[in-house]
Amino acid sequence: MSSLPKYAYLGPAGTFTHAALRAMVDPDTAEFVPCVDVVTALGAVRAGDVDYAVVAIENTVEGGVTATLDTLASGDPLVIVGETVLPVAFELLVRPGTELSDITAVSAHSHAWAQVRRWANATLPDATFVGASSNAAAAVALADQSRSLDEVGFTAALAPPGTGEALGLTVIADRVADSVSAATRFVKVGRPCPVGRPTGADKTTLVVHLPSDHSGALMEMLEQFAVRGVVLSRIESRPIGDRPGEYSFSMDLLGHVGEARVAEALMGLKRTCPVVRFLGSYPKADGEVTDVSMDTGDEAFDQAANWVESLRDGTH
Amino acid sequence: MSSLPKYAYLGPAGTFTHAALRAMVDPDTAEFVPCVDVVTALGAVRAGDVDYAVVAIENTVEGGVTATLDTLASGDPLVIVGETVLPVAFELLVRPGTELSDITAVSAHSHAWAQVRRWANATLPDATFVGASSNAAAAVALADQSRSLDEVGFTAALAPPGTGEALGLTVIADRVADSVSAATRFVKVGRPCPVGRPTGADKTTLVVHLPSDHSGALMEMLEQFAVRGVVLSRIESRPIGDRPGEYSFSMDLLGHVGEARVAEALMGLKRTCPVVRFLGSYPKADGEVTDVSMDTGDEAFDQAANWVESLRDGTH
Amino acid sequence: MSSLPKYAYLGPAGTFTHAALRAMVDPDTAEFVPCVDVVTALGAVRAGDVDYAVVAIENTVEGGVTATLDTLASGDPLVIVGETVLPVAFELLVRPGTELSDITAVSAHSHAWAQVRRWANATLPDATFVGASSNAAAAVALADQSRSLDEVGFTAALAPPGTGEALGLTVIADRVADSVSAATRFVKVGRPCPVGRPTGADKTTLVVHLPSDHSGALMEMLEQFAVRGVVLSRIESRPIGDRPGEYSFSMDLLGHVGEARVAEALMGLKRTCPVVRFLGSYPKADGEVTDVSMDTGDEAFDQAANWVESLRDGTH
Amino acid sequence: MSSLPKYAYLGPAGTFTHAALRAMVDPDTAEFVPCVDVVTALGAVRAGDVDYAVVAIENTVEGGVTATLDTLASGDPLVIVGETVLPVAFELLVRPGTELSDITAVSAHSHAWAQVRRWANATLPDATFVGASSNAAAAVALADQSRSLDEVGFTAALAPPGTGEALGLTVIADRVADSVSAATRFVKVGRPCPVGRPTGADKTTLVVHLPSDHSGALMEMLEQFAVRGVVLSRIESRPIGDRPGEYSFSMDLLGHVGEARVAEALMGLKRTCPVVRFLGSYPKADGEVTDVSMDTGDEAFDQAANWVESLRDGTH
Repeated sequence: MSSLPKYAYLGPAGTFTHAALRAMVDPDTAEFVPCVDVVTALGAVRAGDVDYAVVAIENTVEGGVTATLDTLASGDPLVIVGETVLPVAFELLVRPGTELSDITAVSAHSHAWAQVRRWANATLPDATFVGASSNAAAAVALADQSRSLDEVGFTAALAPPGTGEALGLTVIADRVADSVSAATRFVKVGRPCPVGRPTGADKTTLVVHLPSDHSGALMEMLEQFAVRGVVLSRIESRPIGDRPGEYSFSMDLLGHVGEARVAEALMGLKRTCPVVRFLGSYPKADGEVTDVSMDTGDEAFDQAANWVESLRDGTH
Repeated sequence: MSSLPKYAYLGPAGTFTHAALRAMVDPDTAEFVPCVDVVTALGAVRAGDVDYAVVAIENTVEGGVTATLDTLASGDPLVIVGETVLPVAFELLVRPGTELSDITAVSAHSHAWAQVRRWANATLPDATFVGASSNAAAAVALADQSRSLDEVGFTAALAPPGTGEALGLTVIADRVADSVSAATRFVKVGRPCPVGRPTGADKTTLVVHLPSDHSGALMEMLEQFAVRGVVLSRIESRPIGDRPGEYSFSMDLLGHVGEARVAEALMGLKRTCPVVRFLGSYPKADGEVTDVSMDTGDEAFDQAANWVESLRDGTH
Repeated sequence: MSSLPKYAYLGPAGTFTHAALRAMVDPDTAEFVPCVDVVTALGAVRAGDVDYAVVAIENTVEGGVTATLDTLASGDPLVIVGETVLPVAFELLVRPGTELSDITAVSAHSHAWAQVRRWANATLPDATFVGASSNAAAAVALADQSRSLDEVGFTAALAPPGTGEALGLTVIADRVADSVSAATRFVKVGRPCPVGRPTGADKTTLVVHLPSDHSGALMEMLEQFAVRGVVLSRIESRPIGDRPGEYSFSMDLLGHVGEARVAEALMGLKRTCPVVRFLGSYPKADGEVTDVSMDTGDEAFDQAANWVESLRDGTH
Repeated sequence: MSSLPKYAYLGPAGTFTHAALRAMVDPDTAEFVPCVDVVTALGAVRAGDVDYAVVAIENTVEGGVTATLDTLASGDPLVIVGETVLPVAFELLVRPGTELSDITAVSAHSHAWAQVRRWANATLPDATFVGASSNAAAAVALADQSRSLDEVGFTAALAPPGTGEALGLTVIADRVADSVSAATRFVKVGRPCPVGRPTGADKTTLVVHLPSDHSGALMEMLEQFAVRGVVLSRIESRPIGDRPGEYSFSMDLLGHVGEARVAEALMGLKRTCPVVRFLGSYPKADGEVTDVSMDTGDEAFDQAANWVESLRDGTH
């Protein structure tokens, strides 16, 4: 009977998410629960079946991971409690004996494909793309020698580093990536709990719906940050499915809900936007301390609050 | 030995300020102390010689009253605790027997002159203007029959209504004013004390120095108001005497330091501007209730603050 | 030898794009050229192999179509010359004899899957998703009776309306969509050419890179629109692949480069943003006339320009 | 019969304005026409009786000169064609034999008085102030030995440097000024004419009425400058006499109507504000070149305009 904390992730073993999970959590101290997709993994947290899920949230090439952002944005509240960033590079795997010139179809997850598109156009200009449900799935199918390549439907698979060796496939190309700086950000997600103390190098993730489709509404939202000196490190728009022309914005800001400038900015959003969803304040993966100007630090807020108090009681 | 509260004002009896004081305070309940100028009247409050001063602060034609604004803006703190607005119209006074065509020089306070300039150009195109130290002073001098008109230096005086009758001068023109809507705002000024409760129809007066001479700095200051839905009813720039190109701004905003949106805006100014001076929150003379949108009312601020608290303790 | 204009599209026949193409162009007046993906279709326009491509650019559920946006955003210039909007709903297709309860795996294009996710969770909670390269591909594979379902790898396919009848598959569920308002926007893309005249109901599409990752930079960009009264109907961020933390924004604005307010806003972006890419001014699919306030119409701009001219030559 | 250009100024000889006029114009090349006040001097330009007027427009202590600003702001158009700045310091003049302790009343122009108020409070705490119509008038009256001091009504006069010697009065205090940096700005005003070429160190003076009394309207006006990188060096509010709560703003911006960024900002004001009055583009007194960022220079505007042209004709 295990009493270790349980972590859901996009499985099977061998996916990028698996690698991210191992980077964040020592496998000896936790139970890892593979799931078929991100929606399932986050659902398991909500249901209490697991304690946390580790899921990809953003990619330097593709942008936000739609399924993660949308699943976090509605339903019972979840919060991000940590993040890690992994570089993105793939192995191109084939069955032993297959040559590069034999490759007519390559299978990969669509996000993976997006990150090797230029490489594929240059190296395999005639190969077609076959969608796979995960980065590991295509390689697993290819490794199943009980099926002919015709039955499998593709000749090669893109997979995370280490997959070829694990499955007995030939690595015909290594470190495949359109961009050397390509990376994926993974987050550890749990149920709401008291937030940790600010470290000075924190991020806060939000989803905000705008009151209307005007660019003016976006500008007003940004002013709520600007007047408190809060800086955004990511902003992504998402259509609101059933209301054409309306948008929600998924954002990361540099700072922590425990800091006064962030708290006041959140209050401003809460007052003026129809939906504001808090998705956690947590330490940044890069540990880089946020530069906070003197007039937006906690001390400046405290002094200003004391001053207003002195105006009210006439002791100024 | 009087224990009545003492009110300093720009005297002598008969000035507009005297009329404003009587409109605000029942003469039977207070001791009125005439002063030679606004600086003296406000100095008497600071020194504790009187309890309050009533002084003109703004005029619909001339704008802010420089001496009042500047005296409030530096030195020991003073606060405005009430206001009243009086229409501005003058009597043109002459000695008995003087005809309109005899008038070669008119004496008045320079603020009074500014408010009848167009009338004077049309009615007395050839008359010159002679500055007087108060609205009452010119009429008093003219009424002193021991001096010849040559000695007096002018033929006619502009003065507040009622002055001619009081001094035995002839009212050769009545209700003299360039604008029928001309009015002067007077304020009752005291030493700092606990502010009253918000009435819903309040004004707050401020003086703010901007961090630099750029229009950008002014825009940033105004954004501190805009994001909290605080509206200004008056804004006037004043050069900062010994720093060419730098400005202070004297402002009235609609609201009360006891209201959350005003308090947060004041905190924003305090954090970002080199000087912020609070000159009081007090009921508006016109009693018109300030229109506050739902998302900037005290309840919206309270709810937003509670929400942020729930984010911090994980109960959202 | 055909002299008809050639249109590339995401084939094969039967895709949503095919339906959009037929809605925009009479098949008797043009040659339709199916392509394996959007990148190929747009490449064919650039190469001069076809005159136009019709491609999906935006979806009310998923947001922008990444491949289209990215391909338009770099490489030789292309411009949008028209748009159309099609509602999104699918048929769920099976081989004759398959029951709903037999369905263990559903294949569809990932964008299609995103638009039926809630329906699938409710109706087929245990079915897994198998990615397909196009909306038609999964149905075509399923209709190939020479392969067993095991070989095919899925039991059911989601496809555009009419596909089941065309391929001899059973429509086991019709009008499948999470949202009744789900729709896809398709654009007709050509090589740069003189823009048409403004119709009053036009859209202009842009891609803009921001000078830095600060929210301030986004706000400054939006002000370029706001001061000229230009309204955005779509704004989407995209990471700039090889520069972590930098974003490009893909936008539609209501108006036409032939209108003064749009031209001046574009000039403002061009001056202040590192990259501005114009992707066409073209009539809106809905024909709804843009509301332009009196002070931002062409006449207001003309009068203001004439006034400035009069200031310069002293005739004001 | 003189064919020299005629210059009106606030006389008589000996005033600060007279000194400013001599600093701007060689007396041998022009005819100087003293006027009783600023309104008369500017009226003489409008009537064609003189070619130019030199008038005080701004003071580092008092702010804008009301009469000048208001007279320029309405009536037939006038333009500023040059400026000069003079330090402000006074002589305190008495009749021979008068001691400092004898001084009970000091006469001066009210603007002069404002600039020595602190000095007067410290040095002559008991002396009263008597308004004079010009800086020279009080000294002239004091020098008229045919009248007793009682008849004159004051014991001492403040006047510009050199006045005591010219009139035979005793200089009992020299370089009297509250601020060593106190200075007055004088402008040369003419009828509209073709503006000169930009020098790179220019100022443009404007009067703008705001569409409403909201702080939002002021912010929108300032954004018209900000998005074009135009910086204000002076901004002053003035009530609009007959419309309580409405304001006009008198402003100087750094730049010239012949420059593109200024022209576009003026167009923006013209489109959106009920009244915009141009009061001239002219070289700055200090000759300091305006710092213009690369993206707001004329070249950036030209390139942007050419780019928009290329979008319209399809040659981009």
